[in-house]
Amino acid sequence: MPDLQSFDAAMRECLGERGWLTGPEDAAAQSRDWLNRYGKPPLGLARPTSADEVAAVVRLCAAHDVPVVPQGGNTGLNGGSVATGDGSVIVSLARMNRILSVDSVDFTATVEAGVVLGALHEALADRDLAFPMHLGAEGSAQIGGLIGTNAGGSHAMRFGMMQDLVLGLEVVLPDGTIWDGARALIKDNAGYQLRRLLCGAEGTLGIITKAVLRLFPAPCGRSAALLALADFEAAQRVGALLRARTGEFLAAVEFFGEFGLSLALDHVEELVRPLETAGPVYVLVEIASSIPGIALDDILENALAAAFEQGDVLDGTIAVSEAQRAAFWRLREEMPEGQRLEGRQIKHDVSVPVARIAAFIADASRAAKTVMPGVRINPFGHLGDGNIHFNLSPPQGHDDFDGCEMALSQAVYEAVVQHGGSIAAEHGLGQAKIELADRFRSKTERALMRRIKMTLDPHGIMNPGKVVKI
Amino acid sequence: MPDLQSFDAAMRECLGERGWLTGPEDAAAQSRDWLNRYGKPPLGLARPTSADEVAAVVRLCAAHDVPVVPQGGNTGLNGGSVATGDGSVIVSLARMNRILSVDSVDFTATVEAGVVLGALHEALADRDLAFPMHLGAEGSAQIGGLIGTNAGGSHAMRFGMMQDLVLGLEVVLPDGTIWDGARALIKDNAGYQLRRLLCGAEGTLGIITKAVLRLFPAPCGRSAALLALADFEAAQRVGALLRARTGEFLAAVEFFGEFGLSLALDHVEELVRPLETAGPVYVLVEIASSIPGIALDDILENALAAAFEQGDVLDGTIAVSEAQRAAFWRLREEMPEGQRLEGRQIKHDVSVPVARIAAFIADASRAAKTVMPGVRINPFGHLGDGNIHFNLSPPQGHDDFDGCEMALSQAVYEAVVQHGGSIAAEHGLGQAKIELADRFRSKTERALMRRIKMTLDPHGIMNPGKVVKI
Repeated sequence: MPDLQSFDAAMRECLGERGWLTGPEDAAAQSRDWLNRYGKPPLGLARPTSADEVAAVVRLCAAHDVPVVPQGGNTGLNGGSVATGDGSVIVSLARMNRILSVDSVDFTATVEAGVVLGALHEALADRDLAFPMHLGAEGSAQIGGLIGTNAGGSHAMRFGMMQDLVLGLEVVLPDGTIWDGARALIKDNAGYQLRRLLCGAEGTLGIITKAVLRLFPAPCGRSAALLALADFEAAQRVGALLRARTGEFLAAVEFFGEFGLSLALDHVEELVRPLETAGPVYVLVEIASSIPGIALDDILENALAAAFEQGDVLDGTIAVSEAQRAAFWRLREEMPEGQRLEGRQIKHDVSVPVARIAAFIADASRAAKTVMPGVRINPFGHLGDGNIHFNLSPPQGHDDFDGCEMALSQAVYEAVVQHGGSIAAEHGLGQAKIELADRFRSKTERALMRRIKMTLDPHGIMNPGKVVKI
Repeated sequence: MPDLQSFDAAMRECLGERGWLTGPEDAAAQSRDWLNRYGKPPLGLARPTSADEVAAVVRLCAAHDVPVVPQGGNTGLNGGSVATGDGSVIVSLARMNRILSVDSVDFTATVEAGVVLGALHEALADRDLAFPMHLGAEGSAQIGGLIGTNAGGSHAMRFGMMQDLVLGLEVVLPDGTIWDGARALIKDNAGYQLRRLLCGAEGTLGIITKAVLRLFPAPCGRSAALLALADFEAAQRVGALLRARTGEFLAAVEFFGEFGLSLALDHVEELVRPLETAGPVYVLVEIASSIPGIALDDILENALAAAFEQGDVLDGTIAVSEAQRAAFWRLREEMPEGQRLEGRQIKHDVSVPVARIAAFIADASRAAKTVMPGVRINPFGHLGDGNIHFNLSPPQGHDDFDGCEMALSQAVYEAVVQHGGSIAAEHGLGQAKIELADRFRSKTERALMRRIKMTLDPHGIMNPGKVVKI
């Protein structure tokens, strides 16, 4: 049993009044995940302002056997940034929010872990540079959390996930030492790729305190189109065609169905139906370039003409203004909000090989409807990388899933595995999906992960109960 | 002391006559690295034809306490694929050379580890698909070895290194179990990023037997130019300008100096001086697109006009034919061969942040010349990713370095570290650079690597004496 009184005093001494909050109201907002499904009350909320302070906190926690839960913007969906048990400390990186440098020759930015993604976008806006990570939560999500969860988003097909955008990291390890790997190097083969391993470890191997990020020239032109198609097979074919025909410029190719669109239209104000033809399937494509003078509209039009010609497109329109382009994106991005407002739901963040998207949606839908006839299915996501958000609402007129939740998810995940996919595409495992991973991934793979966890965090101090149990 | 007679019999039983070669002449070629600097004679050369056979070999070796040395094309420069001690087994993947599938909807290829990179290029050539890894040794280098060493090459700035091009892996682990992670998934966050960790581990954590690789639409147009510049600072500025102005199309931007060019011209037949103006510094830039009808020459010309305007380019020409483009590349690619034919040399494969290239070259050159006045320096490499091959020849008229080798390398590596760089950019550590890494990287970082090695290979069976010593 740790001596909590001396621990509390030591934390206060280390972090000061503003850095160590223990009142129940202080930590309340940050002790639960944002969907309010996970999180035990912590001993307190640590708010360090430097890597040295983070290291001191970790050493104190280790000495007192107190679990450490790193937290960024707390926008995760699997409970990765809140506590699984009593008596932990949440370490918020929110006060470490400085953009330390931006280099337009290196095309890099060096930032503290608590920088909000949207703030980084803003800081780069007038410098002709871009950090190409875009996702719904960018107004709250912090760089450290995005790295910890290896975030994906809508541009991952072209620019990769966070692991592809991180050149260097500074990390406080479970024993409280600081690993300074914050190098601005694209090529660095002096040993194992630690920067890649730490990315996506969900804070279970250490706390990211600083990162060197890769930047790109800012796009100066875009062209976007919204298409209506007959089915997901047509969407898959159109996705392949767009990849082949719009090449280097393809920035995002998203898909959703009529049910998803109606959820957004029904529940979110100011949205309007974008095409005369009602789906049943929609594709949103955007191409972009940082080179002035490229005829992007023509390139997109040519590619779409080929898609029309092969009979895969029922209707479609290229955005004629920035406002229309933004309106297309809002339809896609408000879909989760629409489904939340519709009532109870079950979310699945999965991926399959791109060529299996349509077959997976068909099989998973059939299986889910066998479990619960009438269940309403909203599959949407990223056609370019095989990431599908396969989210369910109860049948029309039902308030909930009548106890079918487990069987529905089971059916979906079995279809994922049958199609060679992943039960966790871009949201990670957190605490929610550990048992799923133990079940659907090989013992060999899970044992490898457990051994890595045990050797880097032998006392199980760092974000316990996430990714793997030890 | 292992019972070698029963081991030999068991290996023969497992692999057959063609799969287990023990005569000294059989293994001779493969027991030494291709520069003939490293490699102890092995007990024998195992040539398995399947992952199951590889696994059986590893189990046999583990049971008899025999070290396992995985070997691909054996084109490495740091002795990673030959034995550091007596009594090991070299496992050649050369017979596992099937391209298992190519998928133009997924944009993936699934290949056995022994597929030669050039053979993959050829197989994709008539399918409008490309695997964008290009390097001098592509006629011999195998996919497994390229993954093991996390190869870079001249297109890494745009497409990344091998770790960025590998979606899934099948790996035989040090205990002889097979990890089947050969998934064709861009987004897969179901736990730690094992695929990234295994990539670049130089066979010390397992033997790669199969990989799912990421493909791209094949380029259908290219434009290349060769420029003469006043110094490396101008080259660095031109590199940044080209990144900003040619955006998505920039495929490679290489640099070299007058001494490097003269090495190629002096020793390799059929090469001709490409520009009237003699450097002293040259930049080779190539842009490429998979979209038909893009005016690549115009885009390159506009970018170069801006470079001329800011006074950074003395002379330059855009290739007017495929033959001229190929001739530009041969100058760059024959430089190592030219230097080899010149006589003794010391190679350094290092990287620094892109913005430090010129300062590093100046400082490292000054330091090297202080150690050995007149030493001839051939810095060349990749302007887009900061990778510099800083290779030295003895002063004019000298046959060798008069015992200055260690001091020269020391001076170069100290400059690397001063500029925030890496002592191993794209060639890995192998057996040659372990002590360097122990010296120039933090104890914390090296200890992390050692712990990973020890937990995944507790008996030190797998490619011992490479990357980290345990």
